[in-house]
Amino acid sequence: MTNIDLLGRKAKTLIEALPYIQAFFGKTIVIKYGGAAMTEAGLKRQFAEDVVLMKYVGMHPVIVHGGGPQISGMMKRLGMEPKFIEGVRVTDPETMSIVEMVLAGTINKEIVTLINQMGGKGVGLTGKDGRLIKGRRLSGQEDTMSHVGEVASVDPEIINTLEEGRFIPVISPIGTDEKGNTYNINADLVASSLAKALSAEKLLILTDVAGILDQKKTLIPSVSKKTVEKLIQDGIVHGGMMPKIEAALSSVENGVHKAHIIDGRVPHALLLEIFTDQGVGTEITA
Amino acid sequence: MTNIDLLGRKAKTLIEALPYIQAFFGKTIVIKYGGAAMTEAGLKRQFAEDVVLMKYVGMHPVIVHGGGPQISGMMKRLGMEPKFIEGVRVTDPETMSIVEMVLAGTINKEIVTLINQMGGKGVGLTGKDGRLIKGRRLSGQEDTMSHVGEVASVDPEIINTLEEGRFIPVISPIGTDEKGNTYNINADLVASSLAKALSAEKLLILTDVAGILDQKKTLIPSVSKKTVEKLIQDGIVHGGMMPKIEAALSSVENGVHKAHIIDGRVPHALLLEIFTDQGVGTEITA
Amino acid sequence: MTNIDLLGRKAKTLIEALPYIQAFFGKTIVIKYGGAAMTEAGLKRQFAEDVVLMKYVGMHPVIVHGGGPQISGMMKRLGMEPKFIEGVRVTDPETMSIVEMVLAGTINKEIVTLINQMGGKGVGLTGKDGRLIKGRRLSGQEDTMSHVGEVASVDPEIINTLEEGRFIPVISPIGTDEKGNTYNINADLVASSLAKALSAEKLLILTDVAGILDQKKTLIPSVSKKTVEKLIQDGIVHGGMMPKIEAALSSVENGVHKAHIIDGRVPHALLLEIFTDQGVGTEITA
Amino acid sequence: MTNIDLLGRKAKTLIEALPYIQAFFGKTIVIKYGGAAMTEAGLKRQFAEDVVLMKYVGMHPVIVHGGGPQISGMMKRLGMEPKFIEGVRVTDPETMSIVEMVLAGTINKEIVTLINQMGGKGVGLTGKDGRLIKGRRLSGQEDTMSHVGEVASVDPEIINTLEEGRFIPVISPIGTDEKGNTYNINADLVASSLAKALSAEKLLILTDVAGILDQKKTLIPSVSKKTVEKLIQDGIVHGGMMPKIEAALSSVENGVHKAHIIDGRVPHALLLEIFTDQGVGTEITA
Amino acid sequence: MTNIDLLGRKAKTLIEALPYIQAFFGKTIVIKYGGAAMTEAGLKRQFAEDVVLMKYVGMHPVIVHGGGPQISGMMKRLGMEPKFIEGVRVTDPETMSIVEMVLAGTINKEIVTLINQMGGKGVGLTGKDGRLIKGRRLSGQEDTMSHVGEVASVDPEIINTLEEGRFIPVISPIGTDEKGNTYNINADLVASSLAKALSAEKLLILTDVAGILDQKKTLIPSVSKKTVEKLIQDGIVHGGMMPKIEAALSSVENGVHKAHIIDGRVPHALLLEIFTDQGVGTEITA
Amino acid sequence: MTNIDLLGRKAKTLIEALPYIQAFFGKTIVIKYGGAAMTEAGLKRQFAEDVVLMKYVGMHPVIVHGGGPQISGMMKRLGMEPKFIEGVRVTDPETMSIVEMVLAGTINKEIVTLINQMGGKGVGLTGKDGRLIKGRRLSGQEDTMSHVGEVASVDPEIINTLEEGRFIPVISPIGTDEKGNTYNINADLVASSLAKALSAEKLLILTDVAGILDQKKTLIPSVSKKTVEKLIQDGIVHGGMMPKIEAALSSVENGVHKAHIIDGRVPHALLLEIFTDQGVGTEITA
Repeated sequence: MTNIDLLGRKAKTLIEALPYIQAFFGKTIVIKYGGAAMTEAGLKRQFAEDVVLMKYVGMHPVIVHGGGPQISGMMKRLGMEPKFIEGVRVTDPETMSIVEMVLAGTINKEIVTLINQMGGKGVGLTGKDGRLIKGRRLSGQEDTMSHVGEVASVDPEIINTLEEGRFIPVISPIGTDEKGNTYNINADLVASSLAKALSAEKLLILTDVAGILDQKKTLIPSVSKKTVEKLIQDGIVHGGMMPKIEAALSSVENGVHKAHIIDGRVPHALLLEIFTDQGVGTEITA
Repeated sequence: MTNIDLLGRKAKTLIEALPYIQAFFGKTIVIKYGGAAMTEAGLKRQFAEDVVLMKYVGMHPVIVHGGGPQISGMMKRLGMEPKFIEGVRVTDPETMSIVEMVLAGTINKEIVTLINQMGGKGVGLTGKDGRLIKGRRLSGQEDTMSHVGEVASVDPEIINTLEEGRFIPVISPIGTDEKGNTYNINADLVASSLAKALSAEKLLILTDVAGILDQKKTLIPSVSKKTVEKLIQDGIVHGGMMPKIEAALSSVENGVHKAHIIDGRVPHALLLEIFTDQGVGTEITA
Repeated sequence: MTNIDLLGRKAKTLIEALPYIQAFFGKTIVIKYGGAAMTEAGLKRQFAEDVVLMKYVGMHPVIVHGGGPQISGMMKRLGMEPKFIEGVRVTDPETMSIVEMVLAGTINKEIVTLINQMGGKGVGLTGKDGRLIKGRRLSGQEDTMSHVGEVASVDPEIINTLEEGRFIPVISPIGTDEKGNTYNINADLVASSLAKALSAEKLLILTDVAGILDQKKTLIPSVSKKTVEKLIQDGIVHGGMMPKIEAALSSVENGVHKAHIIDGRVPHALLLEIFTDQGVGTEITA
Repeated sequence: MTNIDLLGRKAKTLIEALPYIQAFFGKTIVIKYGGAAMTEAGLKRQFAEDVVLMKYVGMHPVIVHGGGPQISGMMKRLGMEPKFIEGVRVTDPETMSIVEMVLAGTINKEIVTLINQMGGKGVGLTGKDGRLIKGRRLSGQEDTMSHVGEVASVDPEIINTLEEGRFIPVISPIGTDEKGNTYNINADLVASSLAKALSAEKLLILTDVAGILDQKKTLIPSVSKKTVEKLIQDGIVHGGMMPKIEAALSSVENGVHKAHIIDGRVPHALLLEIFTDQGVGTEITA
Repeated sequence: MTNIDLLGRKAKTLIEALPYIQAFFGKTIVIKYGGAAMTEAGLKRQFAEDVVLMKYVGMHPVIVHGGGPQISGMMKRLGMEPKFIEGVRVTDPETMSIVEMVLAGTINKEIVTLINQMGGKGVGLTGKDGRLIKGRRLSGQEDTMSHVGEVASVDPEIINTLEEGRFIPVISPIGTDEKGNTYNINADLVASSLAKALSAEKLLILTDVAGILDQKKTLIPSVSKKTVEKLIQDGIVHGGMMPKIEAALSSVENGVHKAHIIDGRVPHALLLEIFTDQGVGTEITA
Repeated sequence: MTNIDLLGRKAKTLIEALPYIQAFFGKTIVIKYGGAAMTEAGLKRQFAEDVVLMKYVGMHPVIVHGGGPQISGMMKRLGMEPKFIEGVRVTDPETMSIVEMVLAGTINKEIVTLINQMGGKGVGLTGKDGRLIKGRRLSGQEDTMSHVGEVASVDPEIINTLEEGRFIPVISPIGTDEKGNTYNINADLVASSLAKALSAEKLLILTDVAGILDQKKTLIPSVSKKTVEKLIQDGIVHGGMMPKIEAALSSVENGVHKAHIIDGRVPHALLLEIFTDQGVGTEITA
């Protein structure tokens, strides 16, 4: 391929991005960041590149991250045994302090650093900062010592303030209540709540699977709320995919235009989802 | 090549554009538009795509167009004989009215329409609109009936107003003086004057040649003011390239960061110049 | 008359203008400009003076111009035969290009220049610029080659942007659609559409008659929608006055406070209409 | 004279005002108001009309008023004897309270009311309001009980705040110091100090004479600082005119473009001064 | 008490104020100022301190003052006999001019001066300034020569303009109508009307009594509209308290959160009312 | 003491605060938070109350915290041995990750929570967030594995953005460089650098001593740069006080008005320092 051909192909790719840039200009895109994309060096770097590019071409990316493995790792170093009931971490007060320390003090800052290195201006927050996320004990949690929480309400003022200054918010999924209690909240649900509160255009949930698969294990590119509910009923969708599906459905039922469960193992998964028609996972609509 | 590979290559190209997007964010780029890029259908469309993409990723493109062939064509249809002295159109009052009519009423609006079709919001102006360009008879022109002019001063207020509203200015190279006289001004020089008045980052001059060639007819990718002057002295650069060189030099001597004489026959020449290191012509620095 | 008396009379006239200045402060006045006021040197100058004065005392004048005679003149110079069906110019593609060229490239710039000479800052636009006027083929036009159009919609953003910068918009009555087709639209209707879209206080239509006359050929100073319809039914109002009446009625039925058909042959007709109680034509109310 | 002729003459007068409107657009004009113009019913009304018109056509009039006769009148009603030394009112504490009460409580409000009736929005202030005028005992006044003052400094913030809201400030010539003492300050000097602090375009001082007269008692239309000093030296200018001359000279020496001593007995003296070339008094330049 | 204890107590008091500062941040508090607080030197100074502190901690105090005794005093000095019918001053034209002169020219400026001395920036207004208060003859007043008025409407623009500039408005209870007539309006009612027009958080009415007393002459700390009406019916509340009660009730029925009749004889009554739970009078709620 | 007396004393205290509120209105106060004030429950709460009160009365407090004991505690729980050389923590990569985790993930969020509970809106940041603090290896540190750093530069944009939104920034003393390296920087020096970059009015350093003591162990209330240097030379000031002194001197030499080393063990030390003349420690001036 000659040099001119190569350049031509580059130009063509940039121009093919134009309709997507136009469509999402000025729109908020909430991204749940986790899985392989958060642990594998190449994918981490590519994720940060994607986020910074999105910001520069006029979108408002807002990142919510998880951090399960790192939390369990730190607990083990401290001689504590991570426990889960139905996939939810048992969070006694001491565990809560480890969760917060690892999420806000280690993972969050690592993501901010990556974004900064790619030329963006990341700002890390928890739900405590600027009173962003008011939490409460998860309904159903009977143990009054449990810090497993859910989102009671979102005050988006700090996000709006940061966006005026062209900063990229990076959020740890921690909530707080008026008494100062701290809550460990599922990051998918925090992302969904933020997408709703910010009237986001899209909620993108990065996973370590190809997307939602039908009973033949074939990827379903696009699916309506109704069909998803059928898939759940038939037991085809289940397990760890459930909170992601719930987060996605809850957002599209409350004003978010589309939710996507995408394959975070694909390099530049965000860009491919945003800038191409085929996308890299399953799109969920109301 | 598999689909995933193809997507990956696309993503890579977009990410390669990021440093350029960051470098030119919020910067003004004045573009002299003319030659093949203004007459060949494919190139016209690609030019408009490039301009709109530049706008969406945060640059402020300002377009100055010429229109020699179309003016001569209309003159001939009206039974007038186009005349040139040393490459400058002899512009008596009747010719002036044809020049203005064709530039402002036909070519300018065609460019605006192309930009609009690509998703931009073009606004066509002459130097009369908003009192943008104050002109005067070109120094040296003795004929008091001549409307061949030069730029006396630029009032950038209308450009600034339009840029706040995310409009793309498209400018016909016509000036006016306080008595309401109209002047036909070389478009390269108008582009250079605007670049200076707007403290532009770059002046891009589209031509129908590869760029500045050395005595072996090899493209010179980058050249300083001093070297250009040597090339002129040695007679290597001459003829129709001279006003472009002068426009380029005048701008870089007056605060414009770089000027480029680029090959408008290359598809997406603007994007390639802006978004790649090698560029597509000759870069001129102070 | 002594000098002091003269001065006193001057002061009195200025003061008599005060209630009108107060009444129209900050209001948009759309003016259809055409006829003798656009061809006779003295009237042209006086028109521009009036517009600039209106701007300085706080109104927002918006000018829409026609240009029939000049278009036909250029067509004849080019060996083309102007044709009209029921008063509407037959507009094949070649005619359309002449119409646009003459309106946008000659007449529009002449008006802008006049306004600038009187101390205003005119900015010429067509419906293409800033995507101001979306047009479509006039309903009823069966010939698919016809460029006779009507207003599909108005996007006033460019007008609002210019008014913030204290510019005076001067608009050629040309529309465009998403495919980039150009439409030749009756200037009275464009003025009416703009008046509606801008929630104008007044629509002023300059004509070469005294106003609407009753069956005794006496000027009717003020007339309601109902009475006008009766005059049309009775055949008293007809011919070239019809599109003006329609434009006027359509505007006052859609939120414009008053429309006026005024005598453009009277020097300073705009000022007299705006700044005196008697006015210089016929006022039409909803 | 026919109706059309009459209308034409009106329009001509309005248009003749245009260059003056343009010249003074956005400029501050400080007006010392007093004498016949403040006591004769017709002149009062005309003064208010002039001020409101000035405001509507884009100027920023600021009014400073005196009130000597009314103060003396109230003193006599209260059985006090007004006393003057070299033209300056002897101002003991009790007199000061009468001065303030009459200026701020009666005269100021009468002027505000007149302006409001003409369609303006007047706001009355003393130097105390918004800490506008810091005063001190007039240098040379030995009596420590004397409230005869001079301007120590001006804080124009309240004027600027009111002008943003399109209000017209009307100011009583009273200053105050940090201890809360009140000072009775010559209104000509207050007007001059305000003109300087506001970087006014003009200072207009209304008097009950034609202007500055030469030794043949002929009006001098325009005079330089140097010539005025000669007139004073020669004893041709003296008496009550002196503080007005001093106020005028002090302002033009400190950045005010022109000062005018004008004949307030002429109806619409302000308009004639602002809107005609001949003016109605004497212009003083630096 | 040691020095550290003293400091500690100071800090404690400041911190106790915090919840009140937070509760009233950005809120408008209209204060009717009169009685002992306006005549006794210590109370006057304390009142001004309170108002300035309120401003600095983020509230928007708006002061309306009366001035009955001073008006009667001036009338007597001028040989006029103050007359009252059912507590309302008989206000013929001459009395009106005394009322205005004393309120706007003496009392208002004294309050402004006090506020300025405490570090605030007071600006004195009557209802004429900025067309703040449109008045009309009090309904029931048959004498067409009477200037006893009531509030017809309030235009809060001047208050809003001043608040943006961090000025503290001080208002004399005088209204005006379109003919320029002046009205003497009960200050309690002016304060109530302003509180309503400004959507104030609170209306505070300073009196020379402890508050509303029950039939045992015991202070009622808080009372509802219904209970007040019962107290009036039973004759327990009557006389000079009636207009205050009416003003308070009218405000709380029209969107003002709470009205308070407080004891202006207590030093720092405003601060105690705003910054403590017990308050210093009677709170009236809707 | 009667109730009225008590209230009166409260009012008096509030009013005594007024001059301080006025003096510091709109000013930035950088506070180095550490020692007992950061560990003892009552002092922590009082600190947060003080900060929120400062914010509400118009100051801009910016908090920089340390956290040595908590870091060492966590290191020990993880089986690591904290080491110090000349008072500076030996910071190898693993230690750095503990430092960051504890500062940003535990201590910072605890302070934010306290501020939120008192009614403020805290936002926690490290030097990474918004690229606030660019760090580099401390000059003199030879070990290339050492993360002991110093401030290379401060970009205050994120602080300014947060202050526009009425948020209170709480900053962990961590810097980063362009390669993404993390630096552990002395909190006193970070506070000093921020005070300089923000042109702060004051730098307040909370310590666990009474202030700077002279050779008789008596508190020195106020000291100049010169005297401090003498005290150091004479060995009277030394040890842990040295970095605090250096931070204070560096700030006052670079535009900060005053620096204070205050006794954080005193309840409400901030308020006492800000709102009383005597203060609670040693004031250092340039």
